[in-house]
Order: sequence, then structure tokens, then C-alpha cells
Amino acid sequence: MANYKLTFCYDGSRYRGWQNQNNVSSTIQHKMESVLKDILHEEVSIQASGRTDAGVHARMQVANFHCGQDLEPARILSQLRHQLPQDIGVLQLEPVPESFHARLSCTGKTYRYYLWNSEEPCVFQRKYRTVYPGPLDLAAMRNASSLFTGKHDFSAFTSSRNKKHSSVRTIREITISQDGPEIILEYSADGFLYNMVRILTGSLIEVGSGEKTAEDLSHALESGVRADAGFTAPPQGLFLWNVEY
Amino acid sequence: MANYKLTFCYDGSRYRGWQNQNNVSSTIQHKMESVLKDILHEEVSIQASGRTDAGVHARMQVANFHCGQDLEPARILSQLRHQLPQDIGVLQLEPVPESFHARLSCTGKTYRYYLWNSEEPCVFQRKYRTVYPGPLDLAAMRNASSLFTGKHDFSAFTSSRNKKHSSVRTIREITISQDGPEIILEYSADGFLYNMVRILTGSLIEVGSGEKTAEDLSHALESGVRADAGFTAPPQGLFLWNVEY
Repeated sequence: MANYKLTFCYDGSRYRGWQNQNNVSSTIQHKMESVLKDILHEEVSIQASGRTDAGVHARMQVANFHCGQDLEPARILSQLRHQLPQDIGVLQLEPVPESFHARLSCTGKTYRYYLWNSEEPCVFQRKYRTVYPGPLDLAAMRNASSLFTGKHDFSAFTSSRNKKHSSVRTIREITISQDGPEIILEYSADGFLYNMVRILTGSLIEVGSGEKTAEDLSHALESGVRADAGFTAPPQGLFLWNVEY
Repeated sequence: MANYKLTFCYDGSRYRGWQNQNNVSSTIQHKMESVLKDILHEEVSIQASGRTDAGVHARMQVANFHCGQDLEPARILSQLRHQLPQDIGVLQLEPVPESFHARLSCTGKTYRYYLWNSEEPCVFQRKYRTVYPGPLDLAAMRNASSLFTGKHDFSAFTSSRNKKHSSVRTIREITISQDGPEIILEYSADGFLYNMVRILTGSLIEVGSGEKTAEDLSHALESGVRADAGFTAPPQGLFLWNVEY
């Protein structure tokens, strides 16, 4: 079976997330698999680098699929671009070695969370920003974010109740920058737990607004108790930004 | 009667343009007038700097309205922001002298036209870009655009059949720039005729693609015949960018 790597982006606004769910056809995976089936006349199963939640976007997502035919990537790429809806865009399609697996081969990921930190209306980016007009102490947020870099057990910073898998991840870098009315939180790690970026962001917003202190977040890291961390920031400000192999 | 100046922006995607039309409620003017009436309990008539077509956006539009009450601008601004839909954003509300008239007092305007000039999909900006993936000779387009600067009769570059008003306008500057997959055409003038920016853009695209020459456009300027100019570029790439007083 030939193995192909797909690199693509999507506006997650009208989808129930990447991953197929029982009886839900409005997932990005379902849409891509049904379009590929139309093109290839063959059922394919697409494996992405990881799921994204309902409403979360991807500037860059990577997946792979096996197929019984040798494809002409340029022709399939062009057909995919014609047949997919405008909110899903294929950037690249290339043959890869049999051993390539979009999730298991992934060595690191970057997410960005975009806040609209202004009383002014956010008209043109409204589907891609979380509006938070109140004052935020960026220095306090940066200081607290440094607690998270390095290797930690992020049990308090996930919505997953699956205790079978490790909650240890290594965050390489968190940067918090400001660009006019926007605040951008960028997280790079070897991997992320379910809802982890949204809970880290909610926790840092609570530090920025003065509701929580860095000490509170340090305590949450130690306790591993979800309730000790901050709220889950809404999905629409979140972008899967980069996937590394 | 007190006179107020409104500065605002909008995503024109789901509207039939700025200006009220008979029995059409999906205009931006209608939406703003009905929200203002709800807030002020008074019928107001809003006069904008000029109309924009169905599907055209405004980064900055200016209007004025008279009203029988003295308003607290900050309070009304906040109510407008709460009650208007997310695709219309009010930037400023301020009292102005009785003599201020958004259309008649306007001394100049700038429009921008955004082309997406790439085979790559345009996912996140898809409502604000006109996709033109073919090669475009920007040097030829810049050369042709210089024909339009200065004072000319733009009869060939308007869809208006109204011959009562002058078709003479003065274009101060046209710049054509490239930013990755995007080509941005920016036009500044004392004013523009109906559909003028879209026809100038269509004409320059035809020069860029080799379908027309600068000489053809020079001939159109002289003949004043609409059919001698280029096509009317679609609305979604067009932004009213700045209005001067």
C-alpha cells in the first residue's frame, strides 16, 4: 500500500472538530475522507497528527493515508482543491515512506491562541479571535508562563479523564506577544493533552486579570487537580500552527 | 438639531450594500438606522460618505445623522456596539458642527482591492479576497495605472448611465504592491464613480494577464465607452479603506 502525507489548513468554525464521531458528519475528517473516496473510488482512512476540538482552526495540520493505487500527487491535489469546501484548504500532498505515521512520527507541535484585547469591535477576524476587552498584565502572564516550560505532569491542565496514558509533556517555549489590539500566546511542545492549550490560556488570562497568581498555577501543577487550574478558553481563538517531524 | 459623525467598519458579505433600497432590509444603512431608532426612540436618517455595492467591505466608512436630543456619545457608542451584529463595528461617535455632511464635506477617499494571486487555497481570508491564480505582470499593471492618475473623464470606467453628473475625477495615487500570495491595489482620489474601482481593477488585471495593453486603456479613457474598458472585478476583494475631511 502506498502511503501519502497530506498537509492542509482549515477554518474550524462550522465543524465538530477534526475527528470522526458516531453519526456526526460535520467533522473535518469525515469531509476529507468522503471527498478522497469520491476522487479515488476507494475507502481511505486518514490519520491526523492529532485531533482538534469543535471550532478550533488549523493553519497547518498534517495527516497520512494508505491507498491501493499509485497516485499522481499533483492531479489529486488539484482535485482535492476543487472538491473540498472553501473552509478546508490542501497545501501539499506527497508520497512518504511506509513507516511515516502522522501522529506517531510527530516530534513537536505549535499552537497559537489569539485574543482580541480591545473595546473596539473585531469585525474582520471575528471568527478567529476570542474577545477579552479587559486589562491584562502581560508581564505577570509571561512570568507565570515560565512555570510551564520544561517537563511537567499537566494533569490539572487537561479535560481528559483517561488516567491510563501519561500526562507528562515537555513544553519547549511559550511566548506572549502583543500586536495592536491582539495578544498572541504561542505554545511549542513535544505534544499536548486534550484541551491543554485552552486551559493553559484560560489560566494565564486569570493571572493577567488578577484573579489568580503564579503561585496558584504552581500549586495546580503540583496538585494535578483540574479545579485548581483556570477556565477552558473558548475554541475560536485557537489555531494548530505547526506540526514537526 | 444636533449633528453626529459616526465612523464604522463592516464586512459587506451578507448585505446588499450600504444604501437603502425599496423593500430590501438587508442593507447596512437599514440595519444601522433601525438599531439607532431602538436606542434613541427617534427616527434618524444616516447619510454616509457614499454608497458601497453589495458584498463590498469598509475598513472605514463615515456617516452623519441629525437628532433632536443631545446624546452622550460614549453611552450611545457602547449601546451601538452591543446591539449591532458582529459584522458591523462602530469605531467612533462624536458631535460635529451643523455644517458637517458626510458626503458633501468629504475631500478624498481611498479604496483597496485585494487579490489572492496563488494556486494555494485562501481559507481564512476567503470572504475578503478575489482569487486570481494566473500570472500577472505587475510592472505592466503599474505602468498602465499611471494613465489614470490626475484629472480625467472616467466615463468608460463606470456602470452609471446617469449622464447628468460629471464623470470627471482626480486620482491622486494608485499603488500596486505584493505581500506573499496577495496583490493589493490602492486607489486614492477626490471621489469615485459607481463601480469605478472595480472596473479600474478589472482593466488592470486584463493588462496584467496580457489580454489588454496600456494603449487599450488609454483608448478607453479617450472614447468614454464602457465596453472599451475591462471587466468589473467582483465585490468581495474591495474595501473602502479611508475617508478624508
